[in-house]
Amino acid sequence: MPQIDEYLAANSDRFVRELLEFLRIPSISADSRFKDDVRRAAKFVHSQLERLGFASQLVETEGHPIVYGQSPQVEGAPTVLVYGHYDVQPPDPLNEWVTPPFEPTIRDGYVFARGATDDKGQVFTHIKSAEAWVKTTGQVPVNLKYVIEGEEEVGSNNLEIFLEKWRDRLQADVAVISDTSQFGPGRPAITHGLRGIVACEVTLRGPKQDLHSGIFGGAIANPVNALARAIASLHDASGRIQIPGFFDDIPPLTDAERQRLAALGFDEAGCLADIGVSAPFGEPGCTTLERRWVRPTCDVNGIQGGYQGEGPKTIIPAWARAKITCRLVPNQSPEKVALALEQHLRENCPPGVT
Amino acid sequence: MPQIDEYLAANSDRFVRELLEFLRIPSISADSRFKDDVRRAAKFVHSQLERLGFASQLVETEGHPIVYGQSPQVEGAPTVLVYGHYDVQPPDPLNEWVTPPFEPTIRDGYVFARGATDDKGQVFTHIKSAEAWVKTTGQVPVNLKYVIEGEEEVGSNNLEIFLEKWRDRLQADVAVISDTSQFGPGRPAITHGLRGIVACEVTLRGPKQDLHSGIFGGAIANPVNALARAIASLHDASGRIQIPGFFDDIPPLTDAERQRLAALGFDEAGCLADIGVSAPFGEPGCTTLERRWVRPTCDVNGIQGGYQGEGPKTIIPAWARAKITCRLVPNQSPEKVALALEQHLRENCPPGVT
Repeated sequence: MPQIDEYLAANSDRFVRELLEFLRIPSISADSRFKDDVRRAAKFVHSQLERLGFASQLVETEGHPIVYGQSPQVEGAPTVLVYGHYDVQPPDPLNEWVTPPFEPTIRDGYVFARGATDDKGQVFTHIKSAEAWVKTTGQVPVNLKYVIEGEEEVGSNNLEIFLEKWRDRLQADVAVISDTSQFGPGRPAITHGLRGIVACEVTLRGPKQDLHSGIFGGAIANPVNALARAIASLHDASGRIQIPGFFDDIPPLTDAERQRLAALGFDEAGCLADIGVSAPFGEPGCTTLERRWVRPTCDVNGIQGGYQGEGPKTIIPAWARAKITCRLVPNQSPEKVALALEQHLRENCPPGVT
Repeated sequence: MPQIDEYLAANSDRFVRELLEFLRIPSISADSRFKDDVRRAAKFVHSQLERLGFASQLVETEGHPIVYGQSPQVEGAPTVLVYGHYDVQPPDPLNEWVTPPFEPTIRDGYVFARGATDDKGQVFTHIKSAEAWVKTTGQVPVNLKYVIEGEEEVGSNNLEIFLEKWRDRLQADVAVISDTSQFGPGRPAITHGLRGIVACEVTLRGPKQDLHSGIFGGAIANPVNALARAIASLHDASGRIQIPGFFDDIPPLTDAERQRLAALGFDEAGCLADIGVSAPFGEPGCTTLERRWVRPTCDVNGIQGGYQGEGPKTIIPAWARAKITCRLVPNQSPEKVALALEQHLRENCPPGVT
């Protein structure tokens, strides 16, 4: 479609400008201080769809709104449902950013900003490609439905309710989710599955306040030591998850699956060098690609307790907290895994810590 | 000495006022942002001693200064060396304080402020009791020497150098350290020994930046999980320290020692209720008082890594850090323990984490 290519070329500067505007909105769904910004990002997507003449709606939920958009009906054409999200992950630690997360910067032809590739950039391509069709041919050649949510980074609880309620209106021949990656430069990928997730936060409480470790050290359970012990109990030394029942429902990988993954020619050394890690580590008997794509995990995403400042402070902290997520694979039940995780952590706590 | 008692009673309001002034100085030796305040506290002590007509000196060190004071020579009288410290522990978490740490408040006859009982209050009684003698009888009846340092809360490294250098001038018949507690209300205690300490900070580094746990989870070592595992390896499930060689040099407690401790009639239930802990925990085969006073420990005083904010953030953190201290008992060598601790932590780290 030469006229579409021309339109894209002619408007690319403006597209980039608008994308940067979108990226400037700190739509951090996890952090309630940014609630208004999250809504602002939703409105941005909403107005982008309206400008195309699509029926667009800001659907309220218990949490952040969902943007729904629909192109004018094209009889006989297939229906394509595009899913994306306008919320982003928290950007801290801020001092590790080369340029600030919500001041998009273009370096070497790449846009650097929180959300640029997860998932505002991809959402934007799906809007701008529709715009190119509308502006050059008068309409998109398919029936487009957009569901752009604002809670992907916090578990999409309200999306589930929305999908249930809107089931009929969301019927489609194909669903497109571009919240994924290429396999490598010049190697686009069709992602046909993603791991699920169970997220929890664990707080262990010991004494009602921080105590002097010279006076009480050794006599009561230290919540940080106890939390470390509970976390350590999640894996054995080789990296295999130890939560009872965790692997029960997972069918073993078939030889064919393993061969297909191996045939991709994954550059393990290059990947590790990229991320600055000297050696892989994980479930024994699996390749790095298998561990990354088709095996479940259990990771601490954050931990906190006691004194964080400069120098020593000799205390038994009153509490310790960790954020833990498990990545799940087919047949694992999130409810079952969450329960097993909780029970396992409880069983691995010493007396006097709750 | 009735005239001394009278003087103390007549001046007690002023003494309290001056003490509160001392307590208002945030002399946090661990935190370099408070360097000037630490010096201010040193000067406060220095001027208090000068006002008594004592030879007083601010002795510079590589770190915070040491205040030395000496009363005029009394021929034939014994020499008493008073040790204390004017520095305090970091006061955070600030939101747990009923009243701010450096705004001293008197409630039910007790002074609440950071350092009130550790150790500014005690230092102050040793100065004001001398003042009462000087102002009523013209002199103290002994030869007093004061060594009040500003690095007790960070390991007293420069005190050791000072003691070596000043060895001759510090000769004394008796040394008094009032950086201790009573056994209970109405039960004063002569503390004849304190546990030593080894302090360290451990940082584990994984990837060069935080990574998405859906893309890399399970394939590389997570520094927080690794740190938890290393910390967990410090004890067995019963609470006994597992660092190889840790107990080698410690003579076993004699029956006589154990009986003397037991005879004190320690109120374990009352103590636990006070600190809000439901059960004791520690080295098997020891009583709570033995664990608190005569057995060594290994405690995490603070831990940090990954995302600390509200809600989930699905990352493999780039690093994790813990502050660890061991309390030592007679015959343990700090150097040997530090080395054993370091080696044990290193041996309990998975590949790809440094």
